[in-house]
Amino acid sequence: MLLTMSTLFVRTLRDDPADAEVPSHRLLARGGYIRRAAPGGFTWLPLGWRVLRNVERIVREEMDAMGAQEVHFPALLPREPYEATGRWTEYGDNVFRLQDRKGADFLLGPTHEEMFTLLVKDLYGSYKDLPVSLYQIQTKYRDEARPRAGLFRTREFVMKDSYSFDVDDAGLDRSYAAHREAYTRVFDRLGLEYVIVSATSGAMGGSRSEEFLTPTAIGEDTFVRSAGGYAANVEAVTTVVPASIPLEGLPAAHVEDTPDTPTIDTLVAVAAELFPDAGYTAAHTLKNVVVQLRHPDGTAEPVVIGLPGDREVDTKRLEAQVAPAEVEPFTDFAAHPALIKGYIGPQVLGEESASGIRYLVDPRVVPGTRWITGANEPGKHVFDLTAGRDFTWDGTIEAAEVRAGDPAPDGSGPLELARGVEMGHVFALGRKYAEALDLKVLDENGKLVTVTMGSYGIGVSRAVAAIAESTHDELGLVWPRAVAPADVHLVATGKDAAVFEAARSLADELVAAGLTVLYDDRPKVSPGVKFKDAELLGMPTIVTVGRGLAEGVLELRDRATGERRDIPVEGAAAAVLAEVRG
Amino acid sequence: MLLTMSTLFVRTLRDDPADAEVPSHRLLARGGYIRRAAPGGFTWLPLGWRVLRNVERIVREEMDAMGAQEVHFPALLPREPYEATGRWTEYGDNVFRLQDRKGADFLLGPTHEEMFTLLVKDLYGSYKDLPVSLYQIQTKYRDEARPRAGLFRTREFVMKDSYSFDVDDAGLDRSYAAHREAYTRVFDRLGLEYVIVSATSGAMGGSRSEEFLTPTAIGEDTFVRSAGGYAANVEAVTTVVPASIPLEGLPAAHVEDTPDTPTIDTLVAVAAELFPDAGYTAAHTLKNVVVQLRHPDGTAEPVVIGLPGDREVDTKRLEAQVAPAEVEPFTDFAAHPALIKGYIGPQVLGEESASGIRYLVDPRVVPGTRWITGANEPGKHVFDLTAGRDFTWDGTIEAAEVRAGDPAPDGSGPLELARGVEMGHVFALGRKYAEALDLKVLDENGKLVTVTMGSYGIGVSRAVAAIAESTHDELGLVWPRAVAPADVHLVATGKDAAVFEAARSLADELVAAGLTVLYDDRPKVSPGVKFKDAELLGMPTIVTVGRGLAEGVLELRDRATGERRDIPVEGAAAAVLAEVRG
Repeated sequence: MLLTMSTLFVRTLRDDPADAEVPSHRLLARGGYIRRAAPGGFTWLPLGWRVLRNVERIVREEMDAMGAQEVHFPALLPREPYEATGRWTEYGDNVFRLQDRKGADFLLGPTHEEMFTLLVKDLYGSYKDLPVSLYQIQTKYRDEARPRAGLFRTREFVMKDSYSFDVDDAGLDRSYAAHREAYTRVFDRLGLEYVIVSATSGAMGGSRSEEFLTPTAIGEDTFVRSAGGYAANVEAVTTVVPASIPLEGLPAAHVEDTPDTPTIDTLVAVAAELFPDAGYTAAHTLKNVVVQLRHPDGTAEPVVIGLPGDREVDTKRLEAQVAPAEVEPFTDFAAHPALIKGYIGPQVLGEESASGIRYLVDPRVVPGTRWITGANEPGKHVFDLTAGRDFTWDGTIEAAEVRAGDPAPDGSGPLELARGVEMGHVFALGRKYAEALDLKVLDENGKLVTVTMGSYGIGVSRAVAAIAESTHDELGLVWPRAVAPADVHLVATGKDAAVFEAARSLADELVAAGLTVLYDDRPKVSPGVKFKDAELLGMPTIVTVGRGLAEGVLELRDRATGERRDIPVEGAAAAVLAEVRG
Repeated sequence: MLLTMSTLFVRTLRDDPADAEVPSHRLLARGGYIRRAAPGGFTWLPLGWRVLRNVERIVREEMDAMGAQEVHFPALLPREPYEATGRWTEYGDNVFRLQDRKGADFLLGPTHEEMFTLLVKDLYGSYKDLPVSLYQIQTKYRDEARPRAGLFRTREFVMKDSYSFDVDDAGLDRSYAAHREAYTRVFDRLGLEYVIVSATSGAMGGSRSEEFLTPTAIGEDTFVRSAGGYAANVEAVTTVVPASIPLEGLPAAHVEDTPDTPTIDTLVAVAAELFPDAGYTAAHTLKNVVVQLRHPDGTAEPVVIGLPGDREVDTKRLEAQVAPAEVEPFTDFAAHPALIKGYIGPQVLGEESASGIRYLVDPRVVPGTRWITGANEPGKHVFDLTAGRDFTWDGTIEAAEVRAGDPAPDGSGPLELARGVEMGHVFALGRKYAEALDLKVLDENGKLVTVTMGSYGIGVSRAVAAIAESTHDELGLVWPRAVAPADVHLVATGKDAAVFEAARSLADELVAAGLTVLYDDRPKVSPGVKFKDAELLGMPTIVTVGRGLAEGVLELRDRATGERRDIPVEGAAAAVLAEVRG
């Protein structure tokens, strides 16, 4: 295919758009690949659309190759199936809801577990029909509170979502493994670096899930990895639990006056004054943080999180633990007189306590650990308050921040933290959706069994941003061959008619050989502008026909490495083809 | 590509689904091509999705070939641009509206004139940038009151919409002609019969438009054509206006008692009694029909339509004339005492009259024509009431039904009526949208001129239904090669392992040669069921490997013609390829 710059619907910009926060957004907008059309909604211009379709093609080929079958659902979905699984409510503000002219409720599908479950239920009834994996590449909708980072977080986006249906757990394991393997091939072909991390399944339910994260400084997700090969989404990291300590012989708790200790730091300073030899640090204090959970049914519940004073609550980890409830700030101390702000201690906490407020502690709070904590009186703290002897709790919770240097839960060494963007997700959902929607098949013995499912996603439009983000340089975009909108950017410079004739003839030869050529045929544009555009637009191979033509040579440049060499005009097409096809 | 019936996600049904009204819907559902997922929303199953993608590919190839460039807009669009053109209101109940979490208004795009206009305004500023034609193949939404006929009228559907931008009328003419020509190629390749009819532009505004209709008995659109080559949407037919008659010497009007004449027939009977020699028929009466227009701003206006008593008001023609106003029944006679129900005459009508009600007449009401009509008194009619002498009107309106035998407006003979489905539409929009959204470019003299636009649509998902509708037979679907989900349906019958081996080997050879083969490899399904499925599913070529294998032959059948012939096993792949590639 031949694209000519003189007619291509594109306009390159010298300046970064004001609203572009990240390099991929800046360059895709400056290069005329995308254009903002709505809050969190982008229009794909011709070059951008070609990249997106290339990504789609690769995803489709790999899904087909693993035996998944492509279907396509509406995006405008009825309420009832989502009501049956509880997600109509659980999604909260994150889903777009609307009514038709008759007042019937609909949503714009953020993901299609319910619909696929009902479809398989509709068509299939026997174990002989399974396994089956179905997928679609579809426009999805999410009412993001803060669309950001260009294509990384939008309200309308393209996803590949697939779903596997198996009659038993071993089958689900195979389907899960097949998807995981296909995903590695997809991301390899897209040229995207990725880390596979253990993930919490969040609102999706289910028993096992992993994310494919592309490491990038602009990523929203923090993940951890150890030198020994452990990798996990920070929400999924579990704390290494210390051994319990026998209670016998431990010192008794004692209340001390601790005036003017509004922070952990001031408390530690006072503790050090009182007991200079104890070596107290923030890690010896137990802070009790009150949060309010908003449950899907609308009710609010205050909950206290107890954690070592040297760690903060990580909101995302907390949210992952309490989902589908949402976390809100707690302010209503007036309604809970047992809670003395700044001096809350475990003795008044717990469902069985006077306050009746649920008390969840960090896993490091094990029997026998001793803490400096609030004495439930203004200006007083209690010391040597011993877990399992002086106080109890309703459960543990993984809500404390994970820090670099924390031990990996599998013993594979200290963790390092990195940032990434989620590009893919594989979930072993299990039977949650099949149970909610009654998807059963007859097994070999003629008995009805509930089907077990997996759910798998790839962010297709997000992949375009991730590729741009990870491959660009200071001059512009640098597309990998597999997704580039054209194979060759052919630049004709100067005013010599012979140059344009030679360039056009080369373009025609390359197109005839099956390449897509972006030919800069603009007659009145300076070579400098043309080169800048070629660097910005980022085709993998740049061929320049210009002054050298008089000496019988063209210049061939590799956009990624910057390497350039002259090639003879004679046989130039063959040389370019060899370069492109490797 | 190889599809095997044993694993393909499909379930053929013997019985028609209860909600399927038309053959295409029945067969697409029975064949497992589509499945209803929501009111007016269908899921494409693997076979259906392949057909849809084939249609898409053909549309894309022809749009690219004419030089249009593909882009892709969000479907979730902000209110403001549609507000600027008035369509936010004009669409009424037909558009899905929703709000995001912040209460901002959005719509699900039914068509994208505004967005394309703004995009071109955003990127382009000079006559040198034009012409440009842009298109997208996209999922569209319309809140249809009555989704019907399967894929023909849904609330979520796939359309190709394109828009041309030109600096002057001559350019628009060329862009319009290029689209029109590309559309003929698309429909030719799809194997769809079509008639190009003149159309009203309805709510779209604009000066010229034509529809591509596929003639079918189940069509919602009535169109007319003459032997001499005239063709038009019934809404666009103009009445041949008779010559005016000199007023001199015409008889004076006279009021007569006409009791018990609630209908035109009873009135004609009474008139014939009163004046036996006059030869009065219904065509001599003038009936005045009151309707209420509901304007986009919500106000209601009663209007009277005067037309010959032998014709009814055609609601669709009337609606096309008054759009964007909607037509409602008029009931409030109490508020308009001048209107004597059943006896309304022109003398009390018109903006200048006592009633102040607008009076619009059929174009056949020309000066000098004499009418029997209401005398604005119960039980009385007036005779020889003469147009232009005894009454006037505020304008003419094309609201009367068109009948077979009416003359074509271009003099090309009597009209015949037929039914069709709109498959494509080309509009010369002109400057309406560019003016509303201020899309101007600098012309050659450095002067700002408003751009002139065209808008062009093809119903992509509807085309799947139309092809199925027009090609099916009593046994099932009959796909044209260009869109069939597979080139060959290969049936292996019986239990002989050699049969399945030979079939599989043939399938592999055909796939290696680039064909898509649907191989019925099911081991325990009877030949009768397999043949029925092959007929229902409708691949163009059916190859059977069965008993004949022992004698070294396979059967090759043309699904459309039913012709069958034996071919030798030796060289079977080559014979099938020759058949497929014609």
